[in-house]
Amino acid sequence: MSNIPKSTKIGKYVVIEDDVTIGENVVIGHNTIILKGTHIGNNVAIGCNCILGIQPGSNKRMRKVDKSYNQLFIKENTKVGNGVSIYLGTMIFENVFIGDHASIRENVLIGEGTIIGRSAVVELNSTIGKNCTIQTLAYITGDTNLEDNVFIGPCVSMSNDKYMGEGNYTLKGPIIKKGAKIGNNSSLLPGITIGRKAIVGAGCVVTKDIDDYQTVVGVPSRKIKG
Amino acid sequence: MSNIPKSTKIGKYVVIEDDVTIGENVVIGHNTIILKGTHIGNNVAIGCNCILGIQPGSNKRMRKVDKSYNQLFIKENTKVGNGVSIYLGTMIFENVFIGDHASIRENVLIGEGTIIGRSAVVELNSTIGKNCTIQTLAYITGDTNLEDNVFIGPCVSMSNDKYMGEGNYTLKGPIIKKGAKIGNNSSLLPGITIGRKAIVGAGCVVTKDIDDYQTVVGVPSRKIKG
Amino acid sequence: MSNIPKSTKIGKYVVIEDDVTIGENVVIGHNTIILKGTHIGNNVAIGCNCILGIQPGSNKRMRKVDKSYNQLFIKENTKVGNGVSIYLGTMIFENVFIGDHASIRENVLIGEGTIIGRSAVVELNSTIGKNCTIQTLAYITGDTNLEDNVFIGPCVSMSNDKYMGEGNYTLKGPIIKKGAKIGNNSSLLPGITIGRKAIVGAGCVVTKDIDDYQTVVGVPSRKIKG
Repeated sequence: MSNIPKSTKIGKYVVIEDDVTIGENVVIGHNTIILKGTHIGNNVAIGCNCILGIQPGSNKRMRKVDKSYNQLFIKENTKVGNGVSIYLGTMIFENVFIGDHASIRENVLIGEGTIIGRSAVVELNSTIGKNCTIQTLAYITGDTNLEDNVFIGPCVSMSNDKYMGEGNYTLKGPIIKKGAKIGNNSSLLPGITIGRKAIVGAGCVVTKDIDDYQTVVGVPSRKIKG
Repeated sequence: MSNIPKSTKIGKYVVIEDDVTIGENVVIGHNTIILKGTHIGNNVAIGCNCILGIQPGSNKRMRKVDKSYNQLFIKENTKVGNGVSIYLGTMIFENVFIGDHASIRENVLIGEGTIIGRSAVVELNSTIGKNCTIQTLAYITGDTNLEDNVFIGPCVSMSNDKYMGEGNYTLKGPIIKKGAKIGNNSSLLPGITIGRKAIVGAGCVVTKDIDDYQTVVGVPSRKIKG
Repeated sequence: MSNIPKSTKIGKYVVIEDDVTIGENVVIGHNTIILKGTHIGNNVAIGCNCILGIQPGSNKRMRKVDKSYNQLFIKENTKVGNGVSIYLGTMIFENVFIGDHASIRENVLIGEGTIIGRSAVVELNSTIGKNCTIQTLAYITGDTNLEDNVFIGPCVSMSNDKYMGEGNYTLKGPIIKKGAKIGNNSSLLPGITIGRKAIVGAGCVVTKDIDDYQTVVGVPSRKIKG
């Protein structure tokens, strides 16, 4: 049985499984489910209909799941919206904001102050720095690395699988360096590096690395500045 | 305690908070949450797992939230799907259809007869006219204005922030005039105006205004007719 | 009253309506709703917050709904994630994996071993073959046909309505033949045929048919191989 502080404000039909820890002044919305292994810091606010602490699953055709992930940490002052799903094996740092219907997989780090937009998806094995903005419906593929202060526009798409399911390629997501900005609905190919403070216009298809401070636009994207 | 008419058909594990009003012959699916300040008209049907009447939230790096929004209106004969989230400060007019997993923010107007597709997102401060069709997974950014009879194809993306998070720009979403049609997966830049009955092909990147009755295609989009 | 085998592992606040059948060793997560007409095979695992067996709905401006759909089948060993919605009139075959927040409409067939990514949407009247991979946030429009072993990258968009809501066109989704691969965030126009083992690069706009074994890139997509 989990120990729930008196300061917790809990909605109706909330499920809190065993082996959950909850800090002071936490708010948990109606119908939210907190599965075992979830650790929630002080002053965290969680909306309605969330599922926190999901154990990874797969079928025979997918990457083998690492069953050793057994804890999810959500640190102080973070806000989790409504209908959000977060997996075990993940760490959400302080003052993060996670929008409604977002989905965050296992083995993910999300740095302090970062914003994860509504209906955005962050796949497994990804690291997101501090004070990043991932906008609505953006897709952070698996094995991606975002440094601090990165801006990912709405509906940005990424890929980590060069041969699209052939299984003969080590999956590599993009590496996006400090302060880079990616315009809405751009497409990033697997393993691409985007340099510091680089700017990718809206609707680009980025097929090769972009240097620091460059600005690119188009399909495929080409340099217009930097 | 909210007054619930006898004609209401309520599922299991439904939460109805105080200060909710419900018209005649309303259906509310299982596990749906109706938060305070929500007003539901006659003959409205709401699916399962919805959250209606959400109070806006933010973190320090986001636009300040207007806490004065305290009412959500859903008018007669409107149908709300399953797993839908709708915020306070919003008005959904008569005969609207809202697909499953859609998300609608604060300070939004949705005109009579409009269709909001499944998993579509409508951000704050947006006005959507009558008899519009917003298809599946389309993204209506904040501060957008759609006139009547506009068609937004599936996966269309918009942006309202020219400088991507620099904070030195008044956010401006697109203005889309009466009867315009936007093809699937197109990208619209901030503040763009799309003229009456204009047609934007699939996969366009629209970087400048489009005149009434024009047809455009490509990246960046160029006129082919009109 | 539905007959639930003793081997079923049921979470809290689960709703199981009448006329549901459940096989042996089924797991049903917290807050999940199983509506009447749903038939679940042996060893199926269903996450939390799902809604299975939804009856189709519409408003006056939409395609008329076929009310004759009254059963949903989920076959042996299939895994359904969290927050998933599936409609009546649909058949999910054995060993399928359905990611969190995915949405599957009425009159859909999903072949054995196929993966439906998280937050992906499969619209009505679509057939998806065996061992396909539909990645995260991909959109399978209505009236689409995917043969076996097709790979649909993340955020791929499709359309089935050439005249965008004019109502004077028979809706036709793409036909994608055996083993074809579609890169992330590509856009497919209505009624397009993509040949066997064809490859469509990331961010393409596919405006005409692609032959077997061809590789295409760009906007509009053009042949580079095959």
